[in-house]
Amino acid sequence: MTSILVLHGPNLNLTGTREPDIYGSTTLAEIDERLHALARDRGAVVRTTQSNHEGALVDALHEVRNWADGCIFNPGAFTHYSYALRDAVAAVDYPVVEVHMSLPPARELFRHTSVIAPVCVAQVAGFGARSYDLALLGLLQRLEEGA
Amino acid sequence: MTSILVLHGPNLNLTGTREPDIYGSTTLAEIDERLHALARDRGAVVRTTQSNHEGALVDALHEVRNWADGCIFNPGAFTHYSYALRDAVAAVDYPVVEVHMSLPPARELFRHTSVIAPVCVAQVAGFGARSYDLALLGLLQRLEEGA
Amino acid sequence: MTSILVLHGPNLNLTGTREPDIYGSTTLAEIDERLHALARDRGAVVRTTQSNHEGALVDALHEVRNWADGCIFNPGAFTHYSYALRDAVAAVDYPVVEVHMSLPPARELFRHTSVIAPVCVAQVAGFGARSYDLALLGLLQRLEEGA
Amino acid sequence: MTSILVLHGPNLNLTGTREPDIYGSTTLAEIDERLHALARDRGAVVRTTQSNHEGALVDALHEVRNWADGCIFNPGAFTHYSYALRDAVAAVDYPVVEVHMSLPPARELFRHTSVIAPVCVAQVAGFGARSYDLALLGLLQRLEEGA
Amino acid sequence: MTSILVLHGPNLNLTGTREPDIYGSTTLAEIDERLHALARDRGAVVRTTQSNHEGALVDALHEVRNWADGCIFNPGAFTHYSYALRDAVAAVDYPVVEVHMSLPPARELFRHTSVIAPVCVAQVAGFGARSYDLALLGLLQRLEEGA
Amino acid sequence: MTSILVLHGPNLNLTGTREPDIYGSTTLAEIDERLHALARDRGAVVRTTQSNHEGALVDALHEVRNWADGCIFNPGAFTHYSYALRDAVAAVDYPVVEVHMSLPPARELFRHTSVIAPVCVAQVAGFGARSYDLALLGLLQRLEEGA
Amino acid sequence: MTSILVLHGPNLNLTGTREPDIYGSTTLAEIDERLHALARDRGAVVRTTQSNHEGALVDALHEVRNWADGCIFNPGAFTHYSYALRDAVAAVDYPVVEVHMSLPPARELFRHTSVIAPVCVAQVAGFGARSYDLALLGLLQRLEEGA
Amino acid sequence: MTSILVLHGPNLNLTGTREPDIYGSTTLAEIDERLHALARDRGAVVRTTQSNHEGALVDALHEVRNWADGCIFNPGAFTHYSYALRDAVAAVDYPVVEVHMSLPPARELFRHTSVIAPVCVAQVAGFGARSYDLALLGLLQRLEEGA
Amino acid sequence: MTSILVLHGPNLNLTGTREPDIYGSTTLAEIDERLHALARDRGAVVRTTQSNHEGALVDALHEVRNWADGCIFNPGAFTHYSYALRDAVAAVDYPVVEVHMSLPPARELFRHTSVIAPVCVAQVAGFGARSYDLALLGLLQRLEEGA
Amino acid sequence: MTSILVLHGPNLNLTGTREPDIYGSTTLAEIDERLHALARDRGAVVRTTQSNHEGALVDALHEVRNWADGCIFNPGAFTHYSYALRDAVAAVDYPVVEVHMSLPPARELFRHTSVIAPVCVAQVAGFGARSYDLALLGLLQRLEEGA
Amino acid sequence: MTSILVLHGPNLNLTGTREPDIYGSTTLAEIDERLHALARDRGAVVRTTQSNHEGALVDALHEVRNWADGCIFNPGAFTHYSYALRDAVAAVDYPVVEVHMSLPPARELFRHTSVIAPVCVAQVAGFGARSYDLALLGLLQRLEEGA
Amino acid sequence: MTSILVLHGPNLNLTGTREPDIYGSTTLAEIDERLHALARDRGAVVRTTQSNHEGALVDALHEVRNWADGCIFNPGAFTHYSYALRDAVAAVDYPVVEVHMSLPPARELFRHTSVIAPVCVAQVAGFGARSYDLALLGLLQRLEEGA
Repeated sequence: MTSILVLHGPNLNLTGTREPDIYGSTTLAEIDERLHALARDRGAVVRTTQSNHEGALVDALHEVRNWADGCIFNPGAFTHYSYALRDAVAAVDYPVVEVHMSLPPARELFRHTSVIAPVCVAQVAGFGARSYDLALLGLLQRLEEGA
Repeated sequence: MTSILVLHGPNLNLTGTREPDIYGSTTLAEIDERLHALARDRGAVVRTTQSNHEGALVDALHEVRNWADGCIFNPGAFTHYSYALRDAVAAVDYPVVEVHMSLPPARELFRHTSVIAPVCVAQVAGFGARSYDLALLGLLQRLEEGA
Repeated sequence: MTSILVLHGPNLNLTGTREPDIYGSTTLAEIDERLHALARDRGAVVRTTQSNHEGALVDALHEVRNWADGCIFNPGAFTHYSYALRDAVAAVDYPVVEVHMSLPPARELFRHTSVIAPVCVAQVAGFGARSYDLALLGLLQRLEEGA
Repeated sequence: MTSILVLHGPNLNLTGTREPDIYGSTTLAEIDERLHALARDRGAVVRTTQSNHEGALVDALHEVRNWADGCIFNPGAFTHYSYALRDAVAAVDYPVVEVHMSLPPARELFRHTSVIAPVCVAQVAGFGARSYDLALLGLLQRLEEGA
Repeated sequence: MTSILVLHGPNLNLTGTREPDIYGSTTLAEIDERLHALARDRGAVVRTTQSNHEGALVDALHEVRNWADGCIFNPGAFTHYSYALRDAVAAVDYPVVEVHMSLPPARELFRHTSVIAPVCVAQVAGFGARSYDLALLGLLQRLEEGA
Repeated sequence: MTSILVLHGPNLNLTGTREPDIYGSTTLAEIDERLHALARDRGAVVRTTQSNHEGALVDALHEVRNWADGCIFNPGAFTHYSYALRDAVAAVDYPVVEVHMSLPPARELFRHTSVIAPVCVAQVAGFGARSYDLALLGLLQRLEEGA
Repeated sequence: MTSILVLHGPNLNLTGTREPDIYGSTTLAEIDERLHALARDRGAVVRTTQSNHEGALVDALHEVRNWADGCIFNPGAFTHYSYALRDAVAAVDYPVVEVHMSLPPARELFRHTSVIAPVCVAQVAGFGARSYDLALLGLLQRLEEGA
Repeated sequence: MTSILVLHGPNLNLTGTREPDIYGSTTLAEIDERLHALARDRGAVVRTTQSNHEGALVDALHEVRNWADGCIFNPGAFTHYSYALRDAVAAVDYPVVEVHMSLPPARELFRHTSVIAPVCVAQVAGFGARSYDLALLGLLQRLEEGA
Repeated sequence: MTSILVLHGPNLNLTGTREPDIYGSTTLAEIDERLHALARDRGAVVRTTQSNHEGALVDALHEVRNWADGCIFNPGAFTHYSYALRDAVAAVDYPVVEVHMSLPPARELFRHTSVIAPVCVAQVAGFGARSYDLALLGLLQRLEEGA
Repeated sequence: MTSILVLHGPNLNLTGTREPDIYGSTTLAEIDERLHALARDRGAVVRTTQSNHEGALVDALHEVRNWADGCIFNPGAFTHYSYALRDAVAAVDYPVVEVHMSLPPARELFRHTSVIAPVCVAQVAGFGARSYDLALLGLLQRLEEGA
Repeated sequence: MTSILVLHGPNLNLTGTREPDIYGSTTLAEIDERLHALARDRGAVVRTTQSNHEGALVDALHEVRNWADGCIFNPGAFTHYSYALRDAVAAVDYPVVEVHMSLPPARELFRHTSVIAPVCVAQVAGFGARSYDLALLGLLQRLEEGA
Repeated sequence: MTSILVLHGPNLNLTGTREPDIYGSTTLAEIDERLHALARDRGAVVRTTQSNHEGALVDALHEVRNWADGCIFNPGAFTHYSYALRDAVAAVDYPVVEVHMSLPPARELFRHTSVIAPVCVAQVAGFGARSYDLALLGLLQRLEEGA
């Protein structure tokens, strides 16, 4: 069975309550639930984790090395400076898709650069909570096609 | 019925034959066909166009102003410098999703910046020909949800 | 009789309907009409052209080489990157005045630089559709004074 | 009656004698005289001031706050670094038009940036002494049209 | 009763012993004690926390969302790169004041930029341990005045 | 008796009337009055000056060399480019505190750099008219403690 | 028989009449004629095209994919910003030599960078109309040597 | 007895399994063992720690302040942005040697800058797992020579 | 008789008392006196002026246009940003020599650039008060030699 | 008889043995021999020199001032930083053609800039050892045509 | 027998006398002597050379191509700009270790970049004269281990 | 007797014949002669050297360490990049004055920065061959005054 890690970075625990005009009103629990259902429908399984701690996210990426077939990762603000997370993504063998609810290049200048994307395989951004669904769909298709 | 313009920029006519390790071996005709089918399944309709001419792409964006509910746009290399296309996207009322088959931030430095993204609503990149499918899916959902 | 080319760049065909808070509600046809009248009053004649194609604008600048005594040029977004248009302006003998309806330095950073202005003779910006009138007036005076 | 402040910045007192190939041979007194006449013809009145002192120019902008309906301002070299003048322009309620006799983007690199333009409403440059006339014309039209 | 979170970032636990010529010889415990007293005098209450962990500081900002009326935050070196903390400050509703004991713009170049300040309401720096007192005073006044 | 110079830079004479959403509605006279009172309460005396002239501010810093024990200085827009004021601050022996009513790092990019701060001893910003009070308090404490 | 595409970019149609001190007085027709003769002498054939339209140049590069063994390309001002042409050159299999009549690094700063050269195999510049001859010679030798 | 802290940063727990062509196949446990032996031979003792958490590394540097005579520190990707670790190194009194298994200046651009090195005393890089041995040797010699 | 203007910029009135390790202990009056004597010895005459006001320095340069054969100018901190002074130097016909007592390129980074030097004829820096003497000597020789 | 200096810069003595995939397998002696033959055929003569010493290359350019009619110069790595060689090229009267065997803009970033090209008359690069032949051909033609 | 070239760059002949607080008081002769002994102990041999001439260092690297198994190279100030030395290091087959007595990233900004390191295999810096010993040790181990 | 080294850098051997509108027509021999005479008049002695070899200039600075009381150095184009010469100047104990015949900040951009000046004591530029005389005069005065 295909196994997917879903990783949420800093401040995403507030999703649904924080700056709703940017991030929408769906909560993180609702997003996770939908991803579980979506995966189940396609014979896959997801494990979801959120942390505001860069080190905990690095640990999470390491820990599933023998379990995960792929990962959907919203690094939040770490997107823009965490070379430690970039190295963690590069160090594991499974493919990682970078996800954002908002569209970073349409926001402040510092959000226009991702230091993690260069070691990811794909990106989805700007569809709100739906960005996760599309990323999961795309990642599962990619794994099925053996890319 | 929801109407979607699918716009392919320069050199994409060669898709399937050009640098297949980057762009895959699916041809543009096959991609378009799949998008037509995918749209039909969801009660939508797509119109597809490709041009190597920046001006023709600007014209194409203008022409569908009274028809299109949204657009999926792969600006190819124009992504990185065509402020004329950026202005065209900003000038029309329907939402535009930027699409790339490869993952630009994982390639040459000049591909890390999109001058068009800041006026788009979302981005999908790195899923090869499947990037278009996900973008269409996401855009249709967005239109249904009235976002 | 003094002959003036009026050249409108990309997206200006939408003037009057596009982002009216920036560009006003006068249409391009109305602007052109007023310029014809203004020229006629001063014993001059204008020829007006609009295109979203960079190459067509280059061609237009070339074609009037034996007819035009001057040119009023709103390069739209090409202002900020079209070195081909810059070279075309430098290649013709008649003086060119750069015109903008909005005030570019008061907008996004990429609009603060004109790659075409260094080979123009003058600039008018920020008076909305009236920018064209003032540019025509200034250019005609300049030609009369033999500058 | 519409009241316009005409403000000339540093070194402009030498106009007509200084680097005539750049600035022409019309003196500042002649320019001012022409502006008085031009205003009179249109039922307006101008007040003209020149100073080489940044502080005196700030004071001048402040002093006419209850009298001026608009201002034509040639900030000379202050264009490129005087944030104090920028703040003064932003602090007053009447619209300010930036004027230059030469065409700054066609000169040294440091003249390509105006720190004052972002808080102005319009710009005229490159028509020599006539730049003032066009700016006055444009400003009066703008005020008439209630823009 | 007005409730204020006092948050100390990395290495501030060493205050009083570390580089005393830069940071003075007052310990963090003494600073906290003085802030408790100062708050008590004005009918307010403070809660103080220190951590060397970026994630713990993010958590701390989140946790008091329903309790705090404001926050005094010395992000230490995180000032210069922690966009995760910036997002946390932006995500909470209460006003945050950035505090530094030393004067960052008078030190190394990398300390001249704060990525957190743009989402704060005020800054106090350079008064040594007294910077906290002044920040608390200013924040309480601000809250009283309903700004 | 401790003697403090309070120095207000360009455009601050308009405080209370200019852009009240940024600078508040307290007038400069009211600010000065409150500083006089605050100083009197603590057995100190202040002398207050405002000028839009950079040179006059340099002169003011020089003139009190034998009288002042410290200075509270709001350089306004000179903050960002007046190396002459920086040199003046460096040339006098008494400590200078930089004050701003708004929070410059939360405004336009050019306001993020202070060329004067590196030779000051402390900074207070963002508390509106209260920034002055806090700066005076901090400076007096500093002088009392002999720092 | 070896087949070579000769491609001339924007404004080169004016060669021989435009800025003769930079570009010489040989016309494009004369250059093309000489290249035909030169090729004939070496048992090769050339096809020559000029366009001011970036898209037309992209098309031209695509169209000869099954005919051309190599290409001599003077991209004119597109040299400095057309990533679409760069991608077109990268997408075709035959080698491309960049040619300039003038010596770009000895001219304005923006001419010092070629975005197309990184995907070319060689460069010739500064020999006036003769640059084409040398490029053709070099390209034919290269093809003969099987490089 | 000389006491040395050996500190390993993020992702180094994977050493020996992660990207072996860059980092070799020796595991971190083997490296630590060799350092223990090497120290013992020279009458010294080492304490080794690894963490993916920036804050834990700051804590580790603080905790040994009364025990350590020196430290060998491989900050991993934190090398390039952790000013918090830089401040921690600056805050402790014992000398710190920066170590890397690979040679950062021969890798991606972002690895060419170390924000921590300016407060270290020495650097060893590029000898694979042997970099640690050489750093320990050099640090012990330095401590013996009283430098 | 050769007539030379000696112009001293901001803060130079404090020379001899301000930061004596950088600027020495000779006062400005003593420097001026020596220059008068030196000029007299060579049949020349000097006029000396100091001001902290940029505008006053511009005025001073203008006023001697019909009297001065040359000028020795220490622009102080204006060296690094006063384009108004640069324009004033460019606007007058007599040659200007830039003088500094300290050696700017050996001080802070912002002192490494002179915006005025490009329109001067020569520079002397680093000889303390003697820089003026050498500049006067050099300027008089230059005038004698008719350069 | 036309006399041409052929100058080879640093590391070119290793040509044919060093990095053959970049520089080919022809030795420098073979290149020189071919240039002698090529020149002889056209009634010209070449003198060839190689040095790894920047100063020796400057000397070589100076020494032939009364003999050479032109020079073909491969400055090797000096291309990118030797302003001394640039000044030497500018100081001699004969035209210099810059030559490279590889195509510098297709290699590392530091090779994209030539500090010498701005004072050369032409450039040939990317044809391997044949670059020299083409440069000689082009230079001889240029001299014959009296350009 | 393993053969190692030890190469000292410019100004290192003064080691022991020049700026002893940065470079220590051991002379270059003493350093060389110790390296000879250290090599002898391990059955290796070193050849040592110093030169202030960039070209001589290039020559030295070339000359030992058939003798050296590795090289220890302190390029002195050439570290920061000599692309000729970089190319020489890249052109030879034996591994090169960059050595510095001081720690460049802890000194002036221009010393933070090494243009030579990207083609070296390892770096040792900051251990004073001991840097050479450690580099030799590391290089010999590397050669023994066949890396 | 005061002993002064006069050091001329690359291309200065051509002085008097090379680009006379920039460097004048006095030869280097005449300059040296005048310096000998000028020194003799003041009881000093000069030794003059010219070289196009950076290493030879480094050697020359080293060799006179026990003889020279000061040095007058025109580094020519080495001014802008030779950190080896900068280190040599820093390594010797006697004061060095940088001299230029032309005024570098009035020439090409790359000449606006001197990497050597930060370790010199003074600068003279723009007086043609007279720059040397003034520098010698200034240096002798400085040595007499014991600065």
